[in-house]
Formats: sequence, structure tokens, C-alpha cells
Amino acid sequence: MRAINALIWAAALYAPSTVLALWPMPRTLNTGSTYMKLASTFSIQINVNNPPQDLLDAVSQTTGFLQNDKLRRLAIGRGANDTSILAGAASLPKLTLSLLNGQIASSIAQESVRPLGQRSEGYSLTVPGDGSAATITANSTLGLFRGLTTFSQLWYDASGVTYTFMAPVVISNDSPAFPYRGFMLDTSRNFFPVDDIKRTLDAMSWVKINTLHWHIVDSQSFPLDVAEFPEIAQNGAYDASEVYTAADVQEIVAYAGARGIDVLMEIDTPGHTAIISKSHPEHIACAESSPWETFANEPPSGQLRLASSATRDFTANLLTAVAKTLPSTLFSTGGDEVNTNCYSQDPQTQTDLKNSGKTLEQALSDFVLNNHRALAAIGKTPVVWEEMVLDHNIAVSNNTVVMVWISSQHAASVASKNLHIVHAPSDYFYLDCGAGDWLGNNPTGNSWCDPFKTWQKAYTFDPLASLTTAQRALVLGGQQLLWTEQSSPENLDSIAWPRAASSAEVFWTGATLPDGKPRSVNSALPRLHDLRFRMVRRGVRAIALQPEWCAVRPGACNI
Amino acid sequence: MRAINALIWAAALYAPSTVLALWPMPRTLNTGSTYMKLASTFSIQINVNNPPQDLLDAVSQTTGFLQNDKLRRLAIGRGANDTSILAGAASLPKLTLSLLNGQIASSIAQESVRPLGQRSEGYSLTVPGDGSAATITANSTLGLFRGLTTFSQLWYDASGVTYTFMAPVVISNDSPAFPYRGFMLDTSRNFFPVDDIKRTLDAMSWVKINTLHWHIVDSQSFPLDVAEFPEIAQNGAYDASEVYTAADVQEIVAYAGARGIDVLMEIDTPGHTAIISKSHPEHIACAESSPWETFANEPPSGQLRLASSATRDFTANLLTAVAKTLPSTLFSTGGDEVNTNCYSQDPQTQTDLKNSGKTLEQALSDFVLNNHRALAAIGKTPVVWEEMVLDHNIAVSNNTVVMVWISSQHAASVASKNLHIVHAPSDYFYLDCGAGDWLGNNPTGNSWCDPFKTWQKAYTFDPLASLTTAQRALVLGGQQLLWTEQSSPENLDSIAWPRAASSAEVFWTGATLPDGKPRSVNSALPRLHDLRFRMVRRGVRAIALQPEWCAVRPGACNI
Repeated sequence: MRAINALIWAAALYAPSTVLALWPMPRTLNTGSTYMKLASTFSIQINVNNPPQDLLDAVSQTTGFLQNDKLRRLAIGRGANDTSILAGAASLPKLTLSLLNGQIASSIAQESVRPLGQRSEGYSLTVPGDGSAATITANSTLGLFRGLTTFSQLWYDASGVTYTFMAPVVISNDSPAFPYRGFMLDTSRNFFPVDDIKRTLDAMSWVKINTLHWHIVDSQSFPLDVAEFPEIAQNGAYDASEVYTAADVQEIVAYAGARGIDVLMEIDTPGHTAIISKSHPEHIACAESSPWETFANEPPSGQLRLASSATRDFTANLLTAVAKTLPSTLFSTGGDEVNTNCYSQDPQTQTDLKNSGKTLEQALSDFVLNNHRALAAIGKTPVVWEEMVLDHNIAVSNNTVVMVWISSQHAASVASKNLHIVHAPSDYFYLDCGAGDWLGNNPTGNSWCDPFKTWQKAYTFDPLASLTTAQRALVLGGQQLLWTEQSSPENLDSIAWPRAASSAEVFWTGATLPDGKPRSVNSALPRLHDLRFRMVRRGVRAIALQPEWCAVRPGACNI
Repeated sequence: MRAINALIWAAALYAPSTVLALWPMPRTLNTGSTYMKLASTFSIQINVNNPPQDLLDAVSQTTGFLQNDKLRRLAIGRGANDTSILAGAASLPKLTLSLLNGQIASSIAQESVRPLGQRSEGYSLTVPGDGSAATITANSTLGLFRGLTTFSQLWYDASGVTYTFMAPVVISNDSPAFPYRGFMLDTSRNFFPVDDIKRTLDAMSWVKINTLHWHIVDSQSFPLDVAEFPEIAQNGAYDASEVYTAADVQEIVAYAGARGIDVLMEIDTPGHTAIISKSHPEHIACAESSPWETFANEPPSGQLRLASSATRDFTANLLTAVAKTLPSTLFSTGGDEVNTNCYSQDPQTQTDLKNSGKTLEQALSDFVLNNHRALAAIGKTPVVWEEMVLDHNIAVSNNTVVMVWISSQHAASVASKNLHIVHAPSDYFYLDCGAGDWLGNNPTGNSWCDPFKTWQKAYTFDPLASLTTAQRALVLGGQQLLWTEQSSPENLDSIAWPRAASSAEVFWTGATLPDGKPRSVNSALPRLHDLRFRMVRRGVRAIALQPEWCAVRPGACNI
């Protein structure tokens, strides 16, 4: 047995193949075709001095996944025929985790909030086919965590036996093609309890998404308790039960960090702030003005009085009060959909502009740069929506991260300004599109960003399209986004998963698979089915993308 | 207090108003503006001799809803200001249920399966404003059940007090505008465990939907264990764990019946039967032929060999074997999307046709009518998809029910043949539209029935459009439908609810509200928000249709 395995092992190293259940696909991969099962005494051994608690927890969680996933092969018969082969298969006794070069072990959470570009997510993994121990090695606990995530995806279940049919598995120096891989959640249009966010973080971690872009507040509600400004949530949350307390935020940040995820919070300004008028009417122009269509893209209207020095101070203080509680180096000041008519119609703003001798655009620039200076003073890098630099031409610092959302076509314009890009284009990555018009009395209206963005559409996104070779380094990555006008905890899982895994692979794996072929929806789909089944087993209500008949017959439901 | 209430009571009878939380809106309704709370000793008294168990259960369930719904008013402040008013409000001590004219009480389940047109769903309900007992009267236990459903929707919660602010409430002889109000679920493309179907039946009953159209099998899987044909599910279910046993079916039928719901099962024929080839290859033409596009509208292809006498016998035996186990008078033989090329390319069918001297259309007619005769022999009324009579012109019996699905425009053609109509048009009622192309390799493909059918679109459906006055009696009702190529238990609730409540009101309430005004999405939306919140409280994951900001401000999010 051992001799045969060794032979297969040797051959396998030169025979790249597609491992069904891996998502995102590692950037390097060699597999064999040996059946191997987990030993009943299988354990994960941490060869790390003073391992941090979150690494210990990650190992426990991985052990749980290995025991409970019980994912049967998505093939006709669901792997029933594997049972007899497994009777004689070698057993894997152990997985060992080691840090390279005697690194001191920081926690996963500490590693997860390092600045983009300084974060070490890479790892190497081997599962020999001969019954010797499997290994994961990395430069950081975060890398070990990524390796554990990959390891947990290698295994199927047949009649209670946990096994792979593709040993040996060798992954050398897998690391992400792009440093930023995010998921955005809007918790303002509708509120999401902490447990829903935690479950979302779980799902994100399973596909190595490393950033929760938390669009926590907007015009509709302000569900964030800010220590220095308790009145805003008191008057601006939907309900006392629909508020994230300081403790809730820290709990979410800690839960994210332990899963390799940085929390990038956004307080959108100066637009999308109507609800602040409930506590600070002095700072909000055109609050709930009618008809809303004249003053905002959706009800209710209301924007910060950016030309008022009192409002400028208030805003900078609010942003820093929130940002200083968060470990991330990134913080978003928003900046989308500023409605100029709102300011034209606001007597106070017109007076403020007249008194200062500034145009609205100049005042907007002062407002934004004042916020960015305040954030810089506490060590934060600002993130903005594309209009700030493309429509308003604000001279943001050159470390600013710009999120492109209106159209994927706009990325090149941001690059031409030599600014960092996060791809968040509505034409590929908006998860909410295609559900019709949510306004109350428009029976024939459609979603503004119709049609629905399928996983396939998102998967075919090219992060480097229309960029020069020199500009490519500006691309930090990208994310899929859930705006929640028509979503709530009830459909959070099903509208997001497994679709939001598409961008996770786009930005981890890059353009080509380890066998050198380009990524394609054809080869991705069987793996995505595997991922979806695994997510369901782990408690995330990811939907079926096809009839099960198709899921167990790769390619049979192509056109 | 009593005098004031009496005054309001008198006025109220002449002042029809919109009760926020009712869905579907009763056909007659008078309300006042008196606050009234449920007494702490509130009870429901059944003034019925030998009440059947399912009525007793319905009363218990209603009591549970009254205690646990805790729906707060969808208004700014969520009804907090009501608390002080309620301190002095009258209390309702009791609700009594009575059958008119000393009827003998059959069970709700027995009443629920009476033939359409002979089913008695009407009821009257009063909630006096003076502290005397509320009443529900009806001609049947089914009517009492409908009244209980309405009663449970009258109540809000403020700080633990269950109350209404619209007493007195008088509903005289509410009964449905149309006898058939359905919901269709496809359990073949993806499997739904019994508990998911039960939860769906719960939600259906809350909006007085009275028919589960159970599209139980199709080409992809055959999850029904038929006593006389166990081999079909053994070979055609996705998995041994994904089968409805005879006991499962009876459990579902009983659960439905106790909730006023008839189970109309469909065994689709002659198309949509590919999976039967796994057990009976002799009966299936073009089974999994390639390319599937040539032989079927979706993979896999495969149709019953309708020209074979052995297959005709097999099919009639299969249909009756299933139908005889069900109490419903209705049974669907399907009949959509017959692919003629499949038969042209099938040598056996060509031989059978040649030997019999019949055309394909003649053989199809023989096949269908043979099935219908077999069903009629066991007392079943056949139901078919529209193609059977519109495309193939089959001379079905004049009691046949025809489901119009391809286009709402086709109803008039069915009416011109003097056949009964159930509206199930894809352009209004298909819940699956708008989710993109589910085929594996078509990144820019859209849903075939794009766009998404919003609740508003469904709500504006006119069941009598394009029909003559004489033809109107042919309309039995209608239903929304969930085909499950892209659905699974994970999104069942969120894709169906509250949207599928739209047709429930279209077909119960009819064209006009009790105040004489036409139904409109404007006046419906606040009630639909209430319904959705209540569904969530009761364990059905119905989604938010708008930001909560809009839900508590009726009209503020209109365009």
C-alpha cells in the first residue's frame, strides 16, 4: 500500500488537478488520486510557542468542521461507492501547524488588522498519501488560519468515514492575488442582530474574505451607540432593541478578528445622514423634505450642513469618536450621492457659503479633507466612494482608498488619479439588484440596477480591465455588497450565499487556476456546489444554485 | 366609558375604515376607534356540540398567537403612546364560536376537501367595544377557522398589553370572492423536508389560501414513495433521505386539512418525467438525450411513451395509485411543455404510432383522456396545464380545471372553450423569476421570465380581464407558484413571503375593498408590512419589503 501510494505521490506532484471542494482555489495545488481517511484518533497539533487563544479556538472549530460537515461527494450516488475502497485506505493521524523561522505568535486578530500589504495570509499545506502527518506552515497565525480553512475543505464523508480521494495534496505558498477581499453589509435600511453578523463573518471566513465593510448607519436609521454622542442612536435607531452598543461592536470586531477579518466601518457623509436630524436638526439640511425625489435618491432626504463650521466640527468629532474604538487602519467617510439641490434649497447653507465666500464644491472639499485630517491624526487611512474624486475632484491624500460602485467602467478614471481602488461595481457585485422597485406604489417598476447579478456574472469580473500595467498595483481588491432596502435577517444568508463567494475567488485566486488555465464558471460550479452544501451543514442558509440533479452531474446543465 | 363607547359603536357602523393588520381584507368591515384590550382571563369558548379535534387545536393555536405575536404598531413610536390610553380601556373577556342553525360539526379537514363551490369558508365576526363577548359565527368549522384567522390579526402589543384601537369591529358574512386560492410548490428540482412544507402551510393558512398545489415530481427527481410502484422513488429520488413516504404525505394532508387547505397533487405527464427512466426505461422516450436543448426546455429530457399501450396503462395506474390516497377531489395530470421532437426521434414511439395508425396528437389525446377516465373512475376532477387544451386541443371533460401559466393573456382562450380557469400566469405570479440564468455556463444570461414579479405586480392582477360577463363564473381563482431550480429550503420562506400573500387577497377580497374603493398597492402596503412582521413572529422568515423607516411611515416611500 505504502509503495503504491509513494508512486502516486510522485506522479501527483506533476499532475495539477481540480479539487472539487476547495473555494477559493489555492494559487498552487498538486493532488493525487489516493483515497485516505482521517484516523479515528486524528488530531491537530500546534507546534507554536505560546499559541494565542484564537488559534486554539480555530483549531477546535476546524476539528468540529471535520467531524460535522459530513459533506457527501456531489456525484451520482453521492460517494456511496467510495465506502469499500476506504476500508483499505491509509489513515491520516495528525495535522501539525508550524510558524516558519521561529516567529513570535501574535493572535490571528492582531494579524488581521495590519495595514493592507503588510498582512501575511500565505501558507503551505501538505497531506501526504502514505499515512505520515499533514502539515501547515506559515509566517503568521493568520496564515495558519487560512491553511486550516483550506484543510477543512479537503474532506468528504461516506458512511461516517471522513476522507479524501485526492491524496497527496500539496499546496506551496498559497497567498491571495489581492490584499482586500471584502463583503459589505448595510445595517441601516434594516437592522441585523449581532448573531446574524457573526454568522455572516463565519461564512466570509470560510472563503477567506478578509474585510467586513460595515455600512452601519444611513439616512433611515442610526443603530450605533457612540459614547460621546449617545443622543444620535437614542433618537435615530429604529428601536432601543435595534442598536449596536459599544460592547456589541467590540464583540463583532473580536469575532471577526479571530476569523481573519478586519472591520472597515463607514459613517457615510455628508449625504445619507437624514436621521441625525432627529437629535441634531441644526446639522442637517433638507431633513425629510418633500418631495423626497427632489432632494435625495431615496427617502428620506437629509445631508450634513457641510458649509457650517459647527457641523464640520461635529462631523469630524463623530467620525473620530467611532474610528478610535476600532482596530482597523481603514475608516470610510462615505461620500456617495451628494445632492446639490438639497444645499441650494437650504437657507443656512446658502448663508454659510456666502459668509465664507466659498462655492459648494469648495465647502465640500473642506468638509471632506477636514474629516480625513481628523482620521489621519488617529492613524486611520480614509476610504471614500468614487464620487468624491471623480465627480467632486477632491484632493484626497494619495493613500486614500476609493470604492468604485456606479460602474465597473469607472475604475480606470480612479487609477488615472493614482489612487487605490476597491472594486465594488453595481454592475457585477451588488447583491440586491433585480428584486423590483421597493417604492410603495409602482407596480411595474424594476430594480434600478436590474437585472439580478448572478454568481456567474460576478465571477467573470476582471479586476485589471482597462488598467495599464503600471496602474495594476493600485487595485487592492474588491467586494460584493448587500444594500438592505429589500433585505432583512430573514433573507441575509440566502441573498448573499453562495453568491458572495464569487468575488472571494476572483480576488484570492486571480485570473488563472493552478493548472494554468483561466478561471471559468464551468470549472467553478462543481466547487461552488460543494461550498454551498458545506455552508448549509455549518448553519449558513446558502441557496441551491441549480436542481440537485445538476449539482451531482457536473456539466450536465450547461447550455 | 360605556356611554362613549356606545356612541362610537353607533357611528362606526356607518364609517368603514381600513384596519391595518388584516390580510386578506374582509369583504365587509366596519370598525370604530375605541381602544380595547384582551382581558388577562380572556378565553375562546366553543359553543359547538362535539367539536372536532382540529377545531380545538385551532383555538389553542389562536390563543398562542394572541399571546406571542406581540406585533407593535407599524407607526412612528411603534405604539408606545398607546400604553397610557390602554390603562383605562375596556377589556374583552371572551370570544365565542358558534355554528349557525345547529349544524353538525364536521372537522375542518373534512370541510376543506369538499368540492370547490361546495366549500363553506364564510363567517361573521364581532368585537363589541363595550366589554361584552366577541363572537364568530359560521356555517362550518372551516368558516369558524377563517374567522379565528381574522380575529388573530386584530391585535397589537404595547408593553405586554394585547389590544386593538379599532373597536368595535363588525364583519358580516365575509366570504371569498373566488373559491380557489392556491400556492404551488415544486419539490422535484430541489427537495423540501416535511417541516418546510408544514411551515409553508402555516403561512398559507394565515392568509386564507386554501389549496396547496403540490408539484411533487418532475424530470429531475421523483421523491414520492408510491405503494404499488416503490421502484420509482427508489431509483428516482435524489437520496433515500429525500423521499416523501406514504406516512409523510398523509401527515402533510392532515396538517393542511386542519388549516383549511386542500392538497392538490400533480404528477406531470407526459413530459417532465425523465427520472422515471431510472426504474422504467421502457416507458421513457429520449431519456437524458443530448443535447438536452433539442428534447426539452431544461435538462434532463425524457417523456412518457404516450403511444405505447403499456405506457398508457402504467401511467393511468400510477396516477390512480397516488390519487386514491388523497382526499382532494382534484388531481393534476400536468401536461405542460410536451416536446414533439422527443417523440419524432424515438423509434419506439414512431413504431407505436405507425402500428396504431394515429398521429402524435391523436395519441396524446388518447393518453390524456385515458388518464382522466381513470381518475374520474375514482371520483377525481382532472387539472391540466393550458397547453393540453390550447395547443393540443384535447377534448377534456367540461369539469376539467385548466391552469393558465404561459401568459395571463391566455385565460380568455381557455374561457372560450368553456373550461374552468385557475390563474397561474408567469407574468404575474411566478415567484422564481428574476434570479438570472441557472444554467452553468451563461454568465450574462437572465431568467427566462425576467423580471422579478414584485408583490405589487401580483397584487394588480385582474382575474376577470378580457372575459365576458358570462365567462366570469369559469374563474375558480388563482395562485402564486414557486418553481425550485434556484430555490431550496434555505430560501423558501424569503422568496415566497410576504409576496405570495398578494394573490391571497386578490382572490379572497376581489376587486374592491369594503369601503367600496378599488384595491390598491397604496392601501395594501401598510397591511402587508403588518402581515410580514406577524409572520416573522410566528416563525416564517418573510422578508422586509422596504426599510423599516418606510414601514412605520405609510406613504412616505411612495414615488
